[in-house]
Amino acid sequence: MATRYAIGVDLGGTKIMSAVVDAQGRVIGQAKKSTHAEKGPSVVLKRIEKAMDEALESAGVQKEQIEAIGVGAPGVVDSAKGVVVQLTNLPGWHNVPLARALQRWQAVPVMVSNDVRMAAVGEHRVGAGQGSHSMIAVFVGTGIGGGIILNGRLWVGWRASAGEVGHMVVLADGPYAVGSGIRGSIEALASRSAIERELRASLAAGRQSILPELLKQKDSDAITSGILAKAVSNNDPLTIEVLRRAAYYLGLHASALINAFDPQMLIYGGGVIEALGDWLLPQISEVAKQHAINKVNLDQVKIVPAKLGDRAGVIGAALMAFDLLKTQRDGARTSA
Amino acid sequence: MATRYAIGVDLGGTKIMSAVVDAQGRVIGQAKKSTHAEKGPSVVLKRIEKAMDEALESAGVQKEQIEAIGVGAPGVVDSAKGVVVQLTNLPGWHNVPLARALQRWQAVPVMVSNDVRMAAVGEHRVGAGQGSHSMIAVFVGTGIGGGIILNGRLWVGWRASAGEVGHMVVLADGPYAVGSGIRGSIEALASRSAIERELRASLAAGRQSILPELLKQKDSDAITSGILAKAVSNNDPLTIEVLRRAAYYLGLHASALINAFDPQMLIYGGGVIEALGDWLLPQISEVAKQHAINKVNLDQVKIVPAKLGDRAGVIGAALMAFDLLKTQRDGARTSA
Repeated sequence: MATRYAIGVDLGGTKIMSAVVDAQGRVIGQAKKSTHAEKGPSVVLKRIEKAMDEALESAGVQKEQIEAIGVGAPGVVDSAKGVVVQLTNLPGWHNVPLARALQRWQAVPVMVSNDVRMAAVGEHRVGAGQGSHSMIAVFVGTGIGGGIILNGRLWVGWRASAGEVGHMVVLADGPYAVGSGIRGSIEALASRSAIERELRASLAAGRQSILPELLKQKDSDAITSGILAKAVSNNDPLTIEVLRRAAYYLGLHASALINAFDPQMLIYGGGVIEALGDWLLPQISEVAKQHAINKVNLDQVKIVPAKLGDRAGVIGAALMAFDLLKTQRDGARTSA
Repeated sequence: MATRYAIGVDLGGTKIMSAVVDAQGRVIGQAKKSTHAEKGPSVVLKRIEKAMDEALESAGVQKEQIEAIGVGAPGVVDSAKGVVVQLTNLPGWHNVPLARALQRWQAVPVMVSNDVRMAAVGEHRVGAGQGSHSMIAVFVGTGIGGGIILNGRLWVGWRASAGEVGHMVVLADGPYAVGSGIRGSIEALASRSAIERELRASLAAGRQSILPELLKQKDSDAITSGILAKAVSNNDPLTIEVLRRAAYYLGLHASALINAFDPQMLIYGGGVIEALGDWLLPQISEVAKQHAINKVNLDQVKIVPAKLGDRAGVIGAALMAFDLLKTQRDGARTSA
């Protein structure tokens, strides 16, 4: 019998990633497509199917070998029904029965969940959190999202929205989040958008910095994580000051997670960490441990970078799809 | 055969409570003794035994009918070993083998855990959180402590210190906690000690208030929760202002818990809430829901007062002692 696989899909506002993954979480082949989010759900659905077709091709795997599909979506999802309730950066996604739609591509079980939660599962199963008792993944990018693993399993919460750690308030009455979000939340203080806003305000106020030059060199208008890293390696005082502050807030946020959940590990991923983790994580870790109330065995609490990069989501989605398949099979067996 | 009971003990810095509890969590009899904490562990141990003897007497129950003992202690506890690692307001309690010591009183299984965690279990099993999928108890008194129940079970954490929700930072660079604790934490902002400090500073700065008169009437120097309630019912502007601010911070803190854990319920107890819950909880709830990122079914997330008052701890301790007994019996059966 040919090996069976799952397909994992990471649906983003600008890009769709898809990967053929085996039961051990190994990526056999993958594909990336632009989302065309502005064209609405029916076009995006076709883009997802195209991404899956191309992942199959890249993997050299037949569609018949796919026995489950997992999709991570950026927003509120009803996993039990396979319905996307609402997405953040994709207009028109209100109560879209995504699982049923994808079963027209291939009639297999479809697991739909939140994208960051799936990335947390990926990191737990085959990434930085492998084998851990409990971990919280914090992804620092344009926004800040996360996922919580307790007793080795994803903690979903009562309304299936556990893990929204980016919206925890760390500075009461602090700045508003860029776009939507909660005032004074860690996302409003330490996401790439928050950092960029802070830097632009300082530049507008006349602060000297290498940033304008770096932006000109790159012929870019966006202060990307890559540009931040370049500014730090050039010892740009403004960028270092703003990022140190962000790291301090991330450390306080980490201590809140440690004090409340007492996890074995905190794992940091996302664009900002991928570009600057080596420099940021020691700062985050120091502040977190200063503000942890229980110092017993605190040195054994790990604060480490994620390992899977932007593949965490597709891998986690595929592994959760395998889980769903197993649950359904066990259920069928029990009720038979 | 005579009915079997467990004894629950709530070891506090000033008082020891003890209760004889049946398997349904009903209190059959109880007793309260002063702790004499300053006299050290060996005297306190005798006080605990005396409290248990008196609880037996009050219940009309023989010592032989006690089949398990549960003790909640205010600090770091190693439940697996039955050892108190360190307590907050009881000097000399370093690595005290409390379970073994109490087995000299009666040779039954002894469950030792953190006092607030046990109170959370009490509220979950037979109090305000009965039957809930997930809940977080927040006890607002001199300090702020809590306990987390997930999937109907106490979440203990990796280092057995989960639930330290009082030390989550809500206002970065905010005030230091009274005594020990974390700067800008909810305990430093909204505990009775924090409220009292804030009120005293305002009085010292010449703010008008009914408080000095209330203190004189009561011939007391401490701004107790009862006095706070009296000042509010007298519409004292200063007390109302300070408590509104505390409620606002408690609401932000609640939203952080909701965003991260997505629990079905938040339960508030402790002296401040017992005295002022009717007035504080609607304020806490409003701020919490404003700052919750996921609005789907948010009206179904309950934010309610605790039901068991100061008996939550002894009841939870006794019920966890019954659990330990059951686990040991099941284990014995399995290994037989």
